Amino acid sequence: MAKIRIGQGIDFHQLTEGRDFWLGGVLVPHHKGALGHSDADVLLHAICDAMLGALSLGDIGVHFPDTDNTYKNIDSKILLARCAELIAEKGYQVVNIDSTLCLQAPKIKPYVPQMREAIAGILHLTVDDVSIKATTTEKLGFVGREEGVVALASVLLEAGV
Amino acid sequence: MAKIRIGQGIDFHQLTEGRDFWLGGVLVPHHKGALGHSDADVLLHAICDAMLGALSLGDIGVHFPDTDNTYKNIDSKILLARCAELIAEKGYQVVNIDSTLCLQAPKIKPYVPQMREAIAGILHLTVDDVSIKATTTEKLGFVGREEGVVALASVLLEAGV
Amino acid sequence: MAKIRIGQGIDFHQLTEGRDFWLGGVLVPHHKGALGHSDADVLLHAICDAMLGALSLGDIGVHFPDTDNTYKNIDSKILLARCAELIAEKGYQVVNIDSTLCLQAPKIKPYVPQMREAIAGILHLTVDDVSIKATTTEKLGFVGREEGVVALASVLLEAGV
Ligand SMILES: [Zn+2]
Ligand SMILES: [Zn+2]
Ligand SMILES: [Zn+2]
Repeated sequence: MAKIRIGQGIDFHQLTEGRDFWLGGVLVPHHKGALGHSDADVLLHAICDAMLGALSLGDIGVHFPDTDNTYKNIDSKILLARCAELIAEKGYQVVNIDSTLCLQAPKIKPYVPQMREAIAGILHLTVDDVSIKATTTEKLGFVGREEGVVALASVLLEAGV
Repeated sequence: MAKIRIGQGIDFHQLTEGRDFWLGGVLVPHHKGALGHSDADVLLHAICDAMLGALSLGDIGVHFPDTDNTYKNIDSKILLARCAELIAEKGYQVVNIDSTLCLQAPKIKPYVPQMREAIAGILHLTVDDVSIKATTTEKLGFVGREEGVVALASVLLEAGV
Repeated sequence: MAKIRIGQGIDFHQLTEGRDFWLGGVLVPHHKGALGHSDADVLLHAICDAMLGALSLGDIGVHFPDTDNTYKNIDSKILLARCAELIAEKGYQVVNIDSTLCLQAPKIKPYVPQMREAIAGILHLTVDDVSIKATTTEKLGFVGREEGVVALASVLLEAGV
């Protein structure tokens, strides 16, 4: 396989009252949280998918099926760590990650430094190699109606030196 | 032009009764199929667009206009093969492709190996260089209501060696 | 930081009567335009975000907050030029940009050459390194109902030689 590889991920979750809102490995105070089998961390899931996809290792649904009780309410940081192991076993490492959270509320800017540190720590990167951006959808669609949240991620991998 | 180039594609199709459902070059059994001028293979179209985009060659609508009867109900594998020729003529080859299908139903996991083989065969790649992931939108939006399907693709190209 | 870096951006704007429609730095004749604090150029914003994201420099909302009157109705070409400076200060340059505009109407194909020239001029690239693709959403969702417009961009950066 080539020394440099590209990966991409996209993930979706419904927002609902009475759930914690985990984003990028950080608990974000909000009156709603994301619904899902795991902790429903949409950003970590998109990053996991991008890492797996770069090496054609399947997707998060293949590796951590939502029919498996092992993953019920699991902390997605554990899933991200597992994806890091999978790419390391193939001899690859992350060059950089860029990502975007699409959500109408709340403002996540104050939490971004913590998210970057959490992700960089798990992946043994510096925070300079982990980018998290955010945008609203300007009230458009299910994100704009605060019914759901979407995250997109791109990664570049290189064969270990 | 640089030796390494990035491309991305996104495509959308409506789902409707009474159409075959072509995805990644494979006929997927389902009560609905994708509507379009060609066979409406949303995944192959996203990959074509990513390949064309990486070399700034326009998009699928420029190369294969839906006003041209040549492309009426055409097998999108023919369009993908044409895109492969276009990038080869420029001296480039695909390093790897990563893609995501966003659809609520059916489960496409059983068809992914066939899709990867179909695409890899056309592009003269190994299946390890063609990644196809899938996700629902957790019932959100037009994908969640099974009114449509979306595909995203990223590619890395390199100048031929 | 690595010599080669990947970035991605996505941006959303509402469409409304009585606004100019700026896309890729070009005024596109249309009965609607994009709503926003700046000139609401969704394509330039997605490209800015991709450039910033590749170097983990935050996002367009961090650099050009919509609460700052400096940016009221500002020409987004000025924002793009500022992003170019920011990456140059870090010692990087753009290898290539690929992007997709998702909008139902109007047809933007006639304006794409002008957009590519505008962007390439600001970034000191050749037009071959700036790709703009377009797609409708096949009438699906808020883009299909002509309530909004979405742009996605991917960039590859390299450390200056
Ligand atoms: Zn998820
Ligand atoms: Zn299509
Ligand atoms: Zn914007």
